[in-house]
Amino acid sequence: MSGDGLARSVMARCDTLGGFSEEAERLTRRFATAPMREVNARVAAWMRAAGMDVRQDAVGNLIGRYEGRSADAPTLLLGSHLDTVRDAGKYDGPLGVLTALALVERLHAHDEHLPLALEVYGFADEEGLRFHTAYLGSAVVAGAFAPATLTLADADGTSMEAALRAFGGDPTALQASARGRADLAGYVEVHIEQGPVLEAQGVPVGVVMGIQGQSRLQVTLTGVAGHAGTVPIRLRHDALCAAADLILAVETLAFEMDGLVATVGQIAAYPGASNVIPGEATLSLDIRHHEDGVWGSAIETLHRRAAQIAEKRGVDLLWQSLQDNPAVRCDGRLSGLLSRSIEACGQPVIALPSGAGHDGVMMSRLAPIAMLFVRCAGGISHNPAESVREDDVAVALDVLERFVRRLAEERGGA
Amino acid sequence: MSGDGLARSVMARCDTLGGFSEEAERLTRRFATAPMREVNARVAAWMRAAGMDVRQDAVGNLIGRYEGRSADAPTLLLGSHLDTVRDAGKYDGPLGVLTALALVERLHAHDEHLPLALEVYGFADEEGLRFHTAYLGSAVVAGAFAPATLTLADADGTSMEAALRAFGGDPTALQASARGRADLAGYVEVHIEQGPVLEAQGVPVGVVMGIQGQSRLQVTLTGVAGHAGTVPIRLRHDALCAAADLILAVETLAFEMDGLVATVGQIAAYPGASNVIPGEATLSLDIRHHEDGVWGSAIETLHRRAAQIAEKRGVDLLWQSLQDNPAVRCDGRLSGLLSRSIEACGQPVIALPSGAGHDGVMMSRLAPIAMLFVRCAGGISHNPAESVREDDVAVALDVLERFVRRLAEERGGA
Repeated sequence: MSGDGLARSVMARCDTLGGFSEEAERLTRRFATAPMREVNARVAAWMRAAGMDVRQDAVGNLIGRYEGRSADAPTLLLGSHLDTVRDAGKYDGPLGVLTALALVERLHAHDEHLPLALEVYGFADEEGLRFHTAYLGSAVVAGAFAPATLTLADADGTSMEAALRAFGGDPTALQASARGRADLAGYVEVHIEQGPVLEAQGVPVGVVMGIQGQSRLQVTLTGVAGHAGTVPIRLRHDALCAAADLILAVETLAFEMDGLVATVGQIAAYPGASNVIPGEATLSLDIRHHEDGVWGSAIETLHRRAAQIAEKRGVDLLWQSLQDNPAVRCDGRLSGLLSRSIEACGQPVIALPSGAGHDGVMMSRLAPIAMLFVRCAGGISHNPAESVREDDVAVALDVLERFVRRLAEERGGA
Repeated sequence: MSGDGLARSVMARCDTLGGFSEEAERLTRRFATAPMREVNARVAAWMRAAGMDVRQDAVGNLIGRYEGRSADAPTLLLGSHLDTVRDAGKYDGPLGVLTALALVERLHAHDEHLPLALEVYGFADEEGLRFHTAYLGSAVVAGAFAPATLTLADADGTSMEAALRAFGGDPTALQASARGRADLAGYVEVHIEQGPVLEAQGVPVGVVMGIQGQSRLQVTLTGVAGHAGTVPIRLRHDALCAAADLILAVETLAFEMDGLVATVGQIAAYPGASNVIPGEATLSLDIRHHEDGVWGSAIETLHRRAAQIAEKRGVDLLWQSLQDNPAVRCDGRLSGLLSRSIEACGQPVIALPSGAGHDGVMMSRLAPIAMLFVRCAGGISHNPAESVREDDVAVALDVLERFVRRLAEERGGA
């Protein structure tokens, strides 16, 4: 299976797509922009060359279909997104689209059709950089598009509706563009890990257990400001000291609860002068776990500890929940197939949660999903330093091929 | 001694001076401005009415002299400053000038002259708000004026030299304006505490042991930024968690070392996004103690603990000293006289350090100094909520009178 140069081709195509950017000095490719049009055209050409029927849907998703052995074969959806964040790397998104495409090329090279049709999706907007609409492309496919989204404006004041029309999409057809589910065998996505687990374990790929539930909170601690030289330490109600206690409580809880990730990324102390005791501190909390039960109880535990810290220090606590995204479980049967395909490729099976969100979150509303992570250097993503190894891509492609063949056997018969 | 209404007069005059501001809605009175001119004129009139010879020196300090019984009597300097911070209270500065003036009024009411001349200073600039020149007025008197200061510009681009000329000062005479020291018996300053110690102890006044040494430092911790959802807690080098450790180490050290005050007033985490693990954190450190030896060893201890935190967490530590102001000790003999005067007034003697800087820092270069703190509500200063009680001012005035009479007895004979 390997040795056909397809992993190298995937790497070269990631380089090629990385050149289509809105900005000269860095890679930024937002939804419905000129470089998105060029990327869709380029990938569409590669799809056609691989024997696929290609169309662009109403929101700008690029879809290539490779027919199964018979017209009534079930369909497996594959893919990822073709948009990027600002100052992005080359692999977050495109790697999944191009690995799926390479699998089709491998079949097409022998004019082989499985008892399973394959549809490769290049989603038009997953990062949501332009209109703050993460999963926009997959939401349309999954029938989860919210019409009010069309009135959102980008930084230049252009509405999504106008941007979509200019791109050649059809704002009136978005709800009608949902994919039917009757023929679906599932959705499977290859993606860079965006974390350091596979690298730390020294393995090329991992099977994703689920996409973590995520809570975003804002915590405000209010003590008493005062002169840094004149208020003795025993008479203080220092809001930043209380915040420091809470930051360490967050870290401690993450050590205590297996699989919990918890982060304070933002902090501010007021009034923020070097010679004034902070009277107020605000901080952000980001708490994730792949099991909703654990995730919810972690937030409760942390709230209780924050209240204890506030009481001990005589400061006020304001605990505000900003956003809750429930966890999404990957399908057990598809993930089991992926695991056995990894084993069959001679690799150890590492199961890990996805801390980042993916199109799979939306696609799970339409069909059972599975995801395969590919090791990335240093766990770095959303950064030009994003890097994957060609031999890891070769493993991912081989695993995906075995997975598709086994699924085809199960679903379509031999 | 009490019952002459002078404490009430001091309170009323603080109110009056609080009305002279550069801004309509709040009290802001910078060096060499129109409201400073009005304040000097108003206080000069009160001084003259109290039998004093009045002059304004080359930098704009207002000086009233009340002669001793003989021309060769030693001279005690008293006073504080008449400028304010932005959005100030009414007592920080003026209270000391007006209490000293009230003492002279008490003597003048009986045409009493002591074997000690009294000079009351209303310093032109202690806060340094306009030109960032703290202690400017007392520096001129103490012979510590730095000529380069004249070229400093305020926010409007006006140089100190031009501002001083417009005010009626003499930029060429600043170094010649140093007070001779031969006849000096000392400098004594009444000031609001600007801290909560006296209020917490329930006493009206306290004797100041010294003005604390102060170090300002900036600490930078550099870890590794990463995705808040994908990097497991055990693989992180979170710079903000390291900063939280350090903030608590600062607080712990202040609890361990008697008299130490240590504050983190400023903090920033980078990149500062809720879903990104902080790769860098910077924080300010303000460390004060009234004994240089303790103060220096506290900084060393903290630097060592910071290095341990950095090593344990695998982050880099950058430890930068921005400013060191050595401690200033109050004179033992004068402070002892103040303590006995407090006792004689039937009050408990509380000795406390000054965490804030005062004109006494500069005046200690010229003569032995002593300071009397007056309780202020909530320890609040540099704020319109600054508040003192009239009966506490009456105690301060009585203590100051006993102090001056005892000093006169010692220095001039009965």
